[in-house]
Amino acid sequence: MSVIYDRVALIGLGLIASSMHWAIKRGGLAGEVTGYARTEATRQTARDIGLCDRVFDTMAEAVAGADLVVLCVPVGVMGEVAAEIAPHLKPGATVSDVGSVKAEVIETVGPHLPEGVHFIPAHPIAGTEHSGPRSGFAELFDNRWCLLVPAEGSDPEAVDRITRLWRAMGSNVDHMDAEHHDLVLAVTSHAPHLIAYTMVGVADDLRRVTDSEVIKYSAAGFRDFTRIAASDPTMWRDVFLSNKNATLEILGRFTEELFALQRAIRTGDGEHLHAYFTRTRAIRRSIIEAGQDTDAPDFGRGARKG
Amino acid sequence: MSVIYDRVALIGLGLIASSMHWAIKRGGLAGEVTGYARTEATRQTARDIGLCDRVFDTMAEAVAGADLVVLCVPVGVMGEVAAEIAPHLKPGATVSDVGSVKAEVIETVGPHLPEGVHFIPAHPIAGTEHSGPRSGFAELFDNRWCLLVPAEGSDPEAVDRITRLWRAMGSNVDHMDAEHHDLVLAVTSHAPHLIAYTMVGVADDLRRVTDSEVIKYSAAGFRDFTRIAASDPTMWRDVFLSNKNATLEILGRFTEELFALQRAIRTGDGEHLHAYFTRTRAIRRSIIEAGQDTDAPDFGRGARKG
Repeated sequence: MSVIYDRVALIGLGLIASSMHWAIKRGGLAGEVTGYARTEATRQTARDIGLCDRVFDTMAEAVAGADLVVLCVPVGVMGEVAAEIAPHLKPGATVSDVGSVKAEVIETVGPHLPEGVHFIPAHPIAGTEHSGPRSGFAELFDNRWCLLVPAEGSDPEAVDRITRLWRAMGSNVDHMDAEHHDLVLAVTSHAPHLIAYTMVGVADDLRRVTDSEVIKYSAAGFRDFTRIAASDPTMWRDVFLSNKNATLEILGRFTEELFALQRAIRTGDGEHLHAYFTRTRAIRRSIIEAGQDTDAPDFGRGARKG
Repeated sequence: MSVIYDRVALIGLGLIASSMHWAIKRGGLAGEVTGYARTEATRQTARDIGLCDRVFDTMAEAVAGADLVVLCVPVGVMGEVAAEIAPHLKPGATVSDVGSVKAEVIETVGPHLPEGVHFIPAHPIAGTEHSGPRSGFAELFDNRWCLLVPAEGSDPEAVDRITRLWRAMGSNVDHMDAEHHDLVLAVTSHAPHLIAYTMVGVADDLRRVTDSEVIKYSAAGFRDFTRIAASDPTMWRDVFLSNKNATLEILGRFTEELFALQRAIRTGDGEHLHAYFTRTRAIRRSIIEAGQDTDAPDFGRGARKG
């Protein structure tokens, strides 16, 4: 329990920012947390539930005097937010973000920031399918990974400080370059999300399978897809548009592989299917061993209710 | 708590059969449960853990005198199992199954069964990614749906009896015709499973994204996919091969839709993406309202550990 930054400003008060606020409060990691949200409704909610010590009606006020400013807005508006806060940043402050895509954020935010301000992009790999100021909780980052993407020549002390903050909020921290980050995330998150959105949309389209049936008999596979496909539409639109190349590359490989499996089904090639399914099973074990999920037999079950 | 069948025989002792056993015992729903498994190892495990009152080395012995025989084997071997047990069935007995595909099971099992034996196919929509005799638990069917697919002219009393059994094991029960069942399940379960298998395979293939990274930074989307893709390979191979037409039809629609979204990403059509993602979000709400999942914000989280 020790203060890492005197003042942290959170720009955008959704799931990640509100979870950061509660995690910072849990650990006593900042002297003060200020906040800004675009809509009056969100600012009012934040004030009602005690989210941030002070909520401001302008970004300029929220970032004034802050040692750390974290952009928690959709990737598509990071650039304009950076342009707006730039004149009000305290010299020596650190600016970071929590976007799911890093190359484009660096490209759009970086040029706006004045000399003497440290820019250290970050991506906490954590979330739920909920969004908005009420959706945050202090434990969101516990035992999850936060990837930092510092530019070459970043101030080591500034990098160390934000690393300590994420660790104190419960995360494991790794460093990675932006391009590699975007490819890894295309595989582990962006492509799977688009696929889940697609499948849920297909189910919705099928008039022969009435809505109520799809919902009522929503088996394990599909139910998990709907959970993924309930994520924030604006955030995800921006993720796909800003990580276009890596996402399209992975989707291309996915389609190729899917066609091979479809052909195996069509031609009755059971051996191909069985060998493929046996291989994928092993990956699951590795994830459980890595501590990123549990082996509890709750799939398709109500154990989640716990 | 009242006995519905004097003797129930479970053929194949995996996740579903072992869960049925424990659910029957929980409710006192059968005078005796007998069991058979193909391998000596499974039979020995069953005896060790008290799965079934008596475990037999032959199907003939297991089904002899049984009022209800439930085929809990992969869909691909249902026909040969039916042929083997047919001569040993008690007159007036009911034969059922728990296969995820119904039209092909009816086609392959039906012709083998003698006059005077009732054939009432069933599909409990419940499961976990685990398999084998140790994976079952009494609560698996609680509040899940079991779809019965009785042929026209089925004995109403026999249908009523097996309906009562599934209800007493915790399920909701609906009736449906086989072809419609296979289409609904292709949407809600079979296509999503193939897609999840595919995506996990793609991740495994990508040499630039090392295994450890995919596993370590396994974000919410991908982690849920690996859970789905850890399901029993033999069972799923048989599902795809025996529900070929419906699965290929849904996959065709899926691919069409995926291409449209890919094009939207490529051309930067954010409106298309946003509208699509907003629509799919609504489906999630319906599933929660239907009581088939909960709204707990545990997605991508460790709450499952509870």
